[in-house]
Amino acid sequence: MILDKVNYPKDLKNLSISELNCLADEIRDLIIKKVNVMGGHMAPNLGFIEATIAMHYVFDAPKDKMIFDVSHQCYTHKILTGRKNGFLNPEDYLKYTGYTAPEESEYDLFKVGHTSTSVSLATGVAKVRDLENGRENVIAILGDGSLSGGEALEGLNNAAAFKSNFIVILNDNDMSIAENQGGMYDNLRVLRETDGKAENNLFKTFGFDYCFLKDGNNIEKLIETFKNVKDINHPIVVHICTQKGHGLEVAEKNKEFFHFVMPRALEKKDDTNAVPQENYTSLIKEYLYNRAKTDNKFVIINAATPGVFGFTPDFRKELGEQYTDVGIAEEHAIAFSSAVAKCGAKPVFTVMSSFVQRTYDQLSQDLCLNKSPITMLVYWGGISDADSTHLCVFDIPLISNIPNMVYLAPTCKEELIGMLNWSISQTDHPVAIRVPSGDIKVTDIEDKTNYAMLNKYSLENKGEKVAIIGLGNFLELAQKTAELINKNLGFMPTIINPKYITGIDTVMLEKLKENHKIVITLEDGVLNGGFGEKISRYLGNSDIKVLNYGAEKEFTDRVPIEDLYKRYRLTPEQICEDITKLIND
Amino acid sequence: MILDKVNYPKDLKNLSISELNCLADEIRDLIIKKVNVMGGHMAPNLGFIEATIAMHYVFDAPKDKMIFDVSHQCYTHKILTGRKNGFLNPEDYLKYTGYTAPEESEYDLFKVGHTSTSVSLATGVAKVRDLENGRENVIAILGDGSLSGGEALEGLNNAAAFKSNFIVILNDNDMSIAENQGGMYDNLRVLRETDGKAENNLFKTFGFDYCFLKDGNNIEKLIETFKNVKDINHPIVVHICTQKGHGLEVAEKNKEFFHFVMPRALEKKDDTNAVPQENYTSLIKEYLYNRAKTDNKFVIINAATPGVFGFTPDFRKELGEQYTDVGIAEEHAIAFSSAVAKCGAKPVFTVMSSFVQRTYDQLSQDLCLNKSPITMLVYWGGISDADSTHLCVFDIPLISNIPNMVYLAPTCKEELIGMLNWSISQTDHPVAIRVPSGDIKVTDIEDKTNYAMLNKYSLENKGEKVAIIGLGNFLELAQKTAELINKNLGFMPTIINPKYITGIDTVMLEKLKENHKIVITLEDGVLNGGFGEKISRYLGNSDIKVLNYGAEKEFTDRVPIEDLYKRYRLTPEQICEDITKLIND
Repeated sequence: MILDKVNYPKDLKNLSISELNCLADEIRDLIIKKVNVMGGHMAPNLGFIEATIAMHYVFDAPKDKMIFDVSHQCYTHKILTGRKNGFLNPEDYLKYTGYTAPEESEYDLFKVGHTSTSVSLATGVAKVRDLENGRENVIAILGDGSLSGGEALEGLNNAAAFKSNFIVILNDNDMSIAENQGGMYDNLRVLRETDGKAENNLFKTFGFDYCFLKDGNNIEKLIETFKNVKDINHPIVVHICTQKGHGLEVAEKNKEFFHFVMPRALEKKDDTNAVPQENYTSLIKEYLYNRAKTDNKFVIINAATPGVFGFTPDFRKELGEQYTDVGIAEEHAIAFSSAVAKCGAKPVFTVMSSFVQRTYDQLSQDLCLNKSPITMLVYWGGISDADSTHLCVFDIPLISNIPNMVYLAPTCKEELIGMLNWSISQTDHPVAIRVPSGDIKVTDIEDKTNYAMLNKYSLENKGEKVAIIGLGNFLELAQKTAELINKNLGFMPTIINPKYITGIDTVMLEKLKENHKIVITLEDGVLNGGFGEKISRYLGNSDIKVLNYGAEKEFTDRVPIEDLYKRYRLTPEQICEDITKLIND
Repeated sequence: MILDKVNYPKDLKNLSISELNCLADEIRDLIIKKVNVMGGHMAPNLGFIEATIAMHYVFDAPKDKMIFDVSHQCYTHKILTGRKNGFLNPEDYLKYTGYTAPEESEYDLFKVGHTSTSVSLATGVAKVRDLENGRENVIAILGDGSLSGGEALEGLNNAAAFKSNFIVILNDNDMSIAENQGGMYDNLRVLRETDGKAENNLFKTFGFDYCFLKDGNNIEKLIETFKNVKDINHPIVVHICTQKGHGLEVAEKNKEFFHFVMPRALEKKDDTNAVPQENYTSLIKEYLYNRAKTDNKFVIINAATPGVFGFTPDFRKELGEQYTDVGIAEEHAIAFSSAVAKCGAKPVFTVMSSFVQRTYDQLSQDLCLNKSPITMLVYWGGISDADSTHLCVFDIPLISNIPNMVYLAPTCKEELIGMLNWSISQTDHPVAIRVPSGDIKVTDIEDKTNYAMLNKYSLENKGEKVAIIGLGNFLELAQKTAELINKNLGFMPTIINPKYITGIDTVMLEKLKENHKIVITLEDGVLNGGFGEKISRYLGNSDIKVLNYGAEKEFTDRVPIEDLYKRYRLTPEQICEDITKLIND
């Protein structure tokens, strides 16, 4: 194997083109094999193998600085920069994260997992190089899908104003996670069709020099192209056309499905007899579909991640104008949704907890200040074993401290539907709903709550001495803890399902004072700025003691969820222990 | 006066061009007179009088929808839509806000005060029109300065994909608040110089049709231009060149100064003998200047509001490459700063509390996850009588709940300098400093605190029974309250200056338990998700009672600050009353 001889970029420099091609094939096999076992970003990485080899052949990292965007294309870079064991050896598969990570290698400058950041970050690198009168190349790698994000466009505008070396490698595979969205992608298409010679050129209008390579999976041509721009003395965009999923036939054919795959995606499953299991995602999808079919002013909106919500190509086609994918543009998505609601239609915006972070000011100004009655569904909120770039524990502090917002936490199918029904029918509040995680819970009892009576908590069990407020996903933990307390301490605590993240049920809390000494709050998110602290504040002037449970303020990185629960004392045993201690104090 | 006959847009329709010109002059006089008395956005509004008259002459609002960006250009629109009394009558000067406001008029669709939102909002309006098979025009007004903001660019990308009427009026006056920044502005310049005929055209590359008008202050030509695009069946950008400050000679000559003026800006002041008063802004400016002069890797960064920080044209010129204005692009500013720090230089990013909201995800991902040692100076944080679009009470929840961030609250000149010295010299933490508001406080005692010892609060007075934690601006309130308690209740409370917003001094709080029954926290910001709640949480399991004081979670709108202090019980008398009650309970 050629790869046996290649550990670092320097080992590439003396290889022939045919050896480099061979190396690309070897790397392709490794990536396919590992991603099929572990899951991961399959298609984007397969398309960028040749370009990465050529980049490291021509440029001199780590002296020359390569800044990857969102890192979906960085597997080959990792293999070529001292980390091939993470792909060769199944026992090392978990050793490295799927994103660039400075703690792993000096070849990675930044920890990156949200899109559209590379150009902005690279401007800072170039700035310092210029202050130091350095000569190294600064290379930002930008996927075409990332191009539509506000930060990327702000970055391009500023990068183009440099009077020194600045290279943007635009990896254009003609799609985002799903298809690309928006007017500028027509320009990319025209550029592809004219070999980069079209009269109007997006990058030139931003002020960049520009060059084009059609064969973005051809190492020889890539090397030639990169050599031409190496050490250039001004900003240039190198537009290369690559094939998403290149070299893996099923991925080439189904680029969207293979963007990110779960383990064993390549292995044929005989599931003809399997009954599809209902889950919260499928439930919501069906609900939204049915609403859209009975109301032609019902609009479903997402920002470039339809797969997360089960919005398949068929579903999208079927909904036609009532489905809008704004591309990677969460800021725009909120303003758009707000205006749709303001004009009397019914927008539902679906978004992952980690990516709702990209739109705080729009939530505040465009949405909540204008009190537009949108429904925002926040997915995946909660403590998880995710990479540090994709944590989903910050949405409660982010969303719930904005005035006028109503943020709801359902605990079962029926509550989720009850909240959706209310949110979509009302016209007074911007509403966010935190989609529960885990297996679906079904009570088979219709939820007839009038959610317009804001901040009315639900009393699940009237007990004594201790009241446990279990928010959303953690109502179950509240129930289990109550049972353990009953068993160990001989009394049954009160259990409360607050349902509302954004407000306090002062009537219920006042009533608790009558026969409770301790209130505990459980939330599946970071404690700082979260739900429990509001309860602590409200009860601060009373004799009741309050214990808040939730995640600490930290970026965790692929820590097993059970470890995190233990670390945060989020187990019935630990909570019971704390309560026993407090009672005996 | 022509204006006597004009109350609503319909009253324009039968006026002659010369009458419309006359009207423009009358409106200009009104705006100059009122803004000179009250302060406000002088130059942007003066440049957009003719265009607004022409818009309302050609289009049929409120059926046709006009969506203003940031509203800096909306005064004429207000005068022509039923609100001229707010400019004619000094007693009505305060009646209307300086921004578009749906509660004032059906001609205003959205409450808008942060830039770069109009195109995104307009896409939602157009979407609903299309779902309803409507025919009305949707018109987004966009200033050239706003163009560089991520939300505007995301919006343009999505707007261009419409298959129906969508009109963007680009008000190009060749400057942002200060000069424009970035590559795309070269394209605007080339378009101006070629009467819109340049080969490369930013808007065409986004997919828009395009037309150009050089004489953007000529009503007759504006009318002709707008008539040509009225009822168009696809997206178009109408690029009009206007003169910022048009018709007021001093403003035409000094556009930046007259962007936003304080009252009486036009009246000559004899201040030759006045000694310039030191304030926190001038102090920081001088500090930054001196640091930059002794360290060529010290970089000062801001996003399009240099005037707020006293960064005059001279200052900027003097600093050369060590000063970067990224334009309206706060997201980019954080990523850029993070990378500058990561590469070993020393970035200081200055930003207003209200606008730091535009960059949550970059603070989290680009900055804090990467632990880049930048210094961010947050100005104007605190409760104020500001318009609801420019409140500065949300920065503590926004910034302080992000892991790895160190957010500091100085209370005097010496602490501010001590914190700056530490922040700039250290390499371990992203640091934000909340610049104090109000008159400068000087102790003349050098602050020798080692701020690397994170979360160590300062004990200002060792008292008993009650401990008052006064954060930043509110240390003074803590002191006054303590004195009142001493006078009224006969004991002197403990006074604590926490200095750190982002952490708890557990040693000090534990010690308080020895001889304190009550802890109160005072913060100049919203309570929800803020500083005080962390103290409540920490002390929740103890016998100490905690009272948190700060702003409620609400968008206030030009409420006098003393009224807000009373509403939030932020006066020594009210706090003393609460404590008396709690002690006697």
